[in-house]
Amino acid sequence: MSEIRVGLLGLGTIGTGVARILLEQQELMTRRLGKTIRLVAAADKDTGRDRGLDFSNVRISDDAADVVNAADVDLVVELIGGYEPARTFVATALTHGKHVVTANKALIAKHGEELFVLAAEKGVSIGFEAAVGGGIPCLKALREGLAANAIESVHGILNGTCNFILTKMENEGADYADVLKEAQALGYAEADPTFDVEGVDTAHKLAILAAMAFGSKIRFDQVFTEGINRISAADIEAAAELGYRIKLLGIAKPHGKHGIVEQVEMRVHPTLVPLDAQIAQVSDSYNAVQISGDFVEHTMYFGRGAGERPTASAVVADIMDIARVCSGDGPDAVDKLAPPMGFVAGERKELETLPIADVACEYYLRLMVKDQPGVIASVTSILADHRISLEAVMQKERNSDQAVPVIMLTHETSEGNLQAAISRITALPSVEEEVLILRKETFGA
Amino acid sequence: MSEIRVGLLGLGTIGTGVARILLEQQELMTRRLGKTIRLVAAADKDTGRDRGLDFSNVRISDDAADVVNAADVDLVVELIGGYEPARTFVATALTHGKHVVTANKALIAKHGEELFVLAAEKGVSIGFEAAVGGGIPCLKALREGLAANAIESVHGILNGTCNFILTKMENEGADYADVLKEAQALGYAEADPTFDVEGVDTAHKLAILAAMAFGSKIRFDQVFTEGINRISAADIEAAAELGYRIKLLGIAKPHGKHGIVEQVEMRVHPTLVPLDAQIAQVSDSYNAVQISGDFVEHTMYFGRGAGERPTASAVVADIMDIARVCSGDGPDAVDKLAPPMGFVAGERKELETLPIADVACEYYLRLMVKDQPGVIASVTSILADHRISLEAVMQKERNSDQAVPVIMLTHETSEGNLQAAISRITALPSVEEEVLILRKETFGA
Repeated sequence: MSEIRVGLLGLGTIGTGVARILLEQQELMTRRLGKTIRLVAAADKDTGRDRGLDFSNVRISDDAADVVNAADVDLVVELIGGYEPARTFVATALTHGKHVVTANKALIAKHGEELFVLAAEKGVSIGFEAAVGGGIPCLKALREGLAANAIESVHGILNGTCNFILTKMENEGADYADVLKEAQALGYAEADPTFDVEGVDTAHKLAILAAMAFGSKIRFDQVFTEGINRISAADIEAAAELGYRIKLLGIAKPHGKHGIVEQVEMRVHPTLVPLDAQIAQVSDSYNAVQISGDFVEHTMYFGRGAGERPTASAVVADIMDIARVCSGDGPDAVDKLAPPMGFVAGERKELETLPIADVACEYYLRLMVKDQPGVIASVTSILADHRISLEAVMQKERNSDQAVPVIMLTHETSEGNLQAAISRITALPSVEEEVLILRKETFGA
Repeated sequence: MSEIRVGLLGLGTIGTGVARILLEQQELMTRRLGKTIRLVAAADKDTGRDRGLDFSNVRISDDAADVVNAADVDLVVELIGGYEPARTFVATALTHGKHVVTANKALIAKHGEELFVLAAEKGVSIGFEAAVGGGIPCLKALREGLAANAIESVHGILNGTCNFILTKMENEGADYADVLKEAQALGYAEADPTFDVEGVDTAHKLAILAAMAFGSKIRFDQVFTEGINRISAADIEAAAELGYRIKLLGIAKPHGKHGIVEQVEMRVHPTLVPLDAQIAQVSDSYNAVQISGDFVEHTMYFGRGAGERPTASAVVADIMDIARVCSGDGPDAVDKLAPPMGFVAGERKELETLPIADVACEYYLRLMVKDQPGVIASVTSILADHRISLEAVMQKERNSDQAVPVIMLTHETSEGNLQAAISRITALPSVEEEVLILRKETFGA
């Protein structure tokens, strides 16, 4: 029986999970695969810590070179994270003709294209299911399960930390800063939560999804990105009264003529979604990806977006996919695998990104205004100048010396037009603070 | 460039959808696949009907033999449905060394095992993603995406007709018979809805899911099956007051020791699910499959479970998977595909089914009783004899000459024990009608 020999870079949370599956679930995997996957080597700076696993048949090293250069390793699993040195290690492994599986969304979003070229040159594969949606096999669904479809939209709750914070803010009526502190204490948020709460992590994942959906190159630098840090408990309450829940979504849509995609819309921001939408039910640290296609209509994929065990599940699924076509003891057959980005190499185009000013949305606006006669009239008159009509206006507190919040829901308009109106509104002497702008998605379903 | 030549059996709703994708979406599919899929032949008894498609490059015949025996067909798509003659046509195609893709859950549930053996002998593959969950790529998720997991449970809303009826009953407070009539008028239910409303269709799909999840042979005849026809508007209302929604679920769980599956629990019945459970949000004719694994934890797959376009999406995804490993102009490589049932052939065991009497559940009981003193005392005393404790008792109408409903929610007990108690309760002179027994699932999440 042929076997695949695996080397592991990084024995942190996810690395430990992957080692656990490879060491403890081997019999089940062999029954599924008809081949054996063997963990032969692992590298981590901390070699001493007890991870509760029997590594007696695994070479443990503190030097990644001992894994990426090892002659007896067929496939390298990169679980270090971040851009460097992960990028160098992955490139070295590919150069040596080793397959690579990674959970590193930052690496794929920023350097994926050069790595795909290198892998193709060497006739090896790169798997990265765990980079998007953690344990949820959503990339496989998009790349293979929906391969007969022209994709019409992708909406994802892709960051468990943000979803946990927003859910807790809603359930407890608590403000952002307090919930963030609690999430950090519980280990749900990093000490430096910037990548999560400012939407960067979601943008990494959205860039990968969008490129896979529409057959374009990955353009992480082109994703419009806003985080959740300006949302208040009052916004969540106001949204609920209007029939919406606020979720940090990654959104991608194609634009073009006659079914040919010419531009890709990519944006990450807190979004009002109808309370009865399927994606609005995704709470706590769960993730979900909703994908619509011209034949399949609406589909959604839901599960744990992070954590040792769920992420390891996705990493090992990739290893098994590669092992299925590559025996490790003969010429490999990566052309029998679905191409990593869902389109064969020459067919992935350099598509333009739709400028954010051209994106059309309905908007939720929260203005802090002095409670004086005529303020709302001034604001609505500016909106009317820009042909922006209102679906709802809500003002709760009155007769206050301090600025009071006014909430407005607009009908659809372009972001460029909205921003022009907002500049004029912000200049009004009775409007204090920056206007909070949230976008609304209503879905087809 | 190599190409795969497809022959189609059946040009009804789904067949037309498949032909539509193959004829109209060819360019996109070729970009994804690097190969061309060509529809060369199709057979249907009704050759004359205008299906709005350009069949000028397709041989249309009224004889299935013209497809299954054709030398220029590499892959046969069976969309006739039912046991015969579908089974004979599929067997003939396999015997001639042709791959098969089908949406026929009845065929796979009942005759899948013999067809898998035949396919393996001939070195060809069988795809049946469309047989379960329509357009949702849930079998691919279970077989490949979750391949690193020991599966802990499968819960599915697998029949759109039943889910449509239950949703409408809830939204409108309407009774079963009225909603069924309306569903038939709208085309959501067949003129003969037996297979749908009695749970047989769900049982077909559950038998396939359970075998794939636990590495057993498909045992459709062993699935405990109850339909939705005894549910009343009052039951749906009572369940809601208690915090539950009623869904027709297919449920499969493994039983055994030390992680070795020895018995498989398989049951289809109307089920109380907590209102805030993810699967409770699946409404109208949508389907969803919730799969939990020991590493991935809870995942859910949601989408359209039927219809021309969604089902065709799944059929063509299977064709593309097979085309990827099989060029049509050289020796095929089906061993590079995930095995149809997720385990290599020799590793699929003949597992026993857990007898229904041994299944442990919490129960919803609806008794119609004469409104006399001591009736509830008699009933609860019988339950106490059987060590069945109650979580809730609800009696709404009182002082009536007619029998009034009494609702009880029990704590967990075995089905055998519950049925013994119910026999005694039914024998009480004050209890009229058969007791309605519904089962409850609470999920881990």
